[in-house]
Amino acid sequence: MPSSPPAVLVLCRNAPATLADRFRLLDLHASSLPIDAFLAAAAASAEPPRAAVVPGGGSVRVDAGLLDAVPSLRCVVIVSAGLDPIDLPECARRGVAVANAAGIYSADVADHAVGLLLDVLRGISAGDRFIRRGLWPDQPGGGSSLLPLGSRLRGKRVGIVGLGRIGSATARRLWAFGCVVSYTSRAGPKPSFPCYGFFPTARDLAAHSDALVVACALTAETRRVVDRAVLDALGEGGVVVNVARGANVDEDELVSALAEGRIAGAGLDVFEDEPRVPEELVAMENVVLTPHKAVFTPESMADLDRLVVANLEAFFAGAPLLTPVHVFH
Amino acid sequence: MPSSPPAVLVLCRNAPATLADRFRLLDLHASSLPIDAFLAAAAASAEPPRAAVVPGGGSVRVDAGLLDAVPSLRCVVIVSAGLDPIDLPECARRGVAVANAAGIYSADVADHAVGLLLDVLRGISAGDRFIRRGLWPDQPGGGSSLLPLGSRLRGKRVGIVGLGRIGSATARRLWAFGCVVSYTSRAGPKPSFPCYGFFPTARDLAAHSDALVVACALTAETRRVVDRAVLDALGEGGVVVNVARGANVDEDELVSALAEGRIAGAGLDVFEDEPRVPEELVAMENVVLTPHKAVFTPESMADLDRLVVANLEAFFAGAPLLTPVHVFH
Repeated sequence: MPSSPPAVLVLCRNAPATLADRFRLLDLHASSLPIDAFLAAAAASAEPPRAAVVPGGGSVRVDAGLLDAVPSLRCVVIVSAGLDPIDLPECARRGVAVANAAGIYSADVADHAVGLLLDVLRGISAGDRFIRRGLWPDQPGGGSSLLPLGSRLRGKRVGIVGLGRIGSATARRLWAFGCVVSYTSRAGPKPSFPCYGFFPTARDLAAHSDALVVACALTAETRRVVDRAVLDALGEGGVVVNVARGANVDEDELVSALAEGRIAGAGLDVFEDEPRVPEELVAMENVVLTPHKAVFTPESMADLDRLVVANLEAFFAGAPLLTPVHVFH
Repeated sequence: MPSSPPAVLVLCRNAPATLADRFRLLDLHASSLPIDAFLAAAAASAEPPRAAVVPGGGSVRVDAGLLDAVPSLRCVVIVSAGLDPIDLPECARRGVAVANAAGIYSADVADHAVGLLLDVLRGISAGDRFIRRGLWPDQPGGGSSLLPLGSRLRGKRVGIVGLGRIGSATARRLWAFGCVVSYTSRAGPKPSFPCYGFFPTARDLAAHSDALVVACALTAETRRVVDRAVLDALGEGGVVVNVARGANVDEDELVSALAEGRIAGAGLDVFEDEPRVPEELVAMENVVLTPHKAVFTPESMADLDRLVVANLEAFFAGAPLLTPVHVFH
């Protein structure tokens, strides 16, 4: 370690507590400055930061503007698996290394995807609301006959959009429920998963699925990959679960499809314009909505803290990053 | 088939629609009589019923009183897997055959158990309430930091109370999530499940578990099998899921343990005095409550209809029942 700890630009909230033990932090959220003034001050400091920790939510974009504002940056560590807030070609062009949090969240997000699917199919949140509203004793015979029946998960055809770490972890879980799992993937069929059916497009996949789980990265290609045509191919018995990014689904079309009964339900952890959730969704009984919290468990936060610190230490030591993002340009 | 269809006493609501095509139904809920008068009228009819279809919820008990009231009964078909509303020794003594709906519900109840566990651990219903109350945009930075973090399911030690059809189906699913599964069973260790750990009592199991899933039949032995000592052995990080019968858990003790933070949360599909749910539970944020609807899917209802009809047809044809309950006396 150098005698004076290296400077690190911190642009995300809730940065690992252990960072401050090892680095000199320039922390946006501990500052009273607006972001532009904050970045200018950081760039003008005696030892400008060579590394930054950035949020995954998209509130900060790592693009030419930010890299121009702090030209000393040579390493960006993003605390999400998704890289959508980062202009990767621009980073590559400037020789800025990028590390992400790939792998840390896969189990938690896959669990959340299955939880949302089960909740929508079996009406768990809806049943909970029904009881909390005090409606159960009003039912004929004390039953719950005014609540719609749930659906069985066993035997359902579940289509996974994007069979990466999260998608394949979701598939493995659904397999144990007796689901018939298929997928689509930009990279084509994956020989390591011979037990799952492959469809070349999301539309083909939807046409052969009872439920779609969106688990892909957000890229120009996958923006609104679930559009009106895909929703209509899924059909009126179909359910959409999204644990990827809100923009992977055309939200207006999703709302219309739900409102018009062209699909049966949805479980959503992500939205196009978070924290805004369309009012129409909030009023629906056949949707389950969670505030982009699939990954937030104490266990994943602890894993993340260790990984962020380890990536920064590797960068400052001139060693390979632990979870580098390879950029082709 | 005889020229005149045989009489069947129907004491449950929502009996299979196809029953009326094959039998002459004496339907309590289609009658305006109270149950005693209804049974007396049935017993006094020209051709008194030799078979009955009874509900699983416990609103009707098949005991000496009912069998005295309709002494012509020789076959009882219960529409649940659980046999707790039936006095089996009394049926055996009188030569009354009993059939249940074993096996039909196992997948659905196991799915519901996993759904409840995921919901409690990951705060799915709580997150849904948070969004529907419009609280998300109020959070610092638009995050959801005021919601408690969820817990990871992977690596959790889950103890299953009762490794029958439902318990083993639940275990198989949890295994795919990377849980460490153990169980207790009145029958002792089950050699067919060598991958799960066995504990001789619910208390031992709880002491070695992060979550308990109650999946046993309700018998004199398993009534309140989850009591204060078991809850305290589970401890403050622990979660209870009950998809068996409300009376398998000491509900007052469960409420106290939740209120005092001696356990972390609960997912409950069943309650001691349904449809009454303790007010304290309804006010808690760390519980998920569903109105005894784990089994109610169109798929299981269709399977049930076929099985009830097939059991009755077998009985009237003098053939073996499809799902006989063997009573030892």
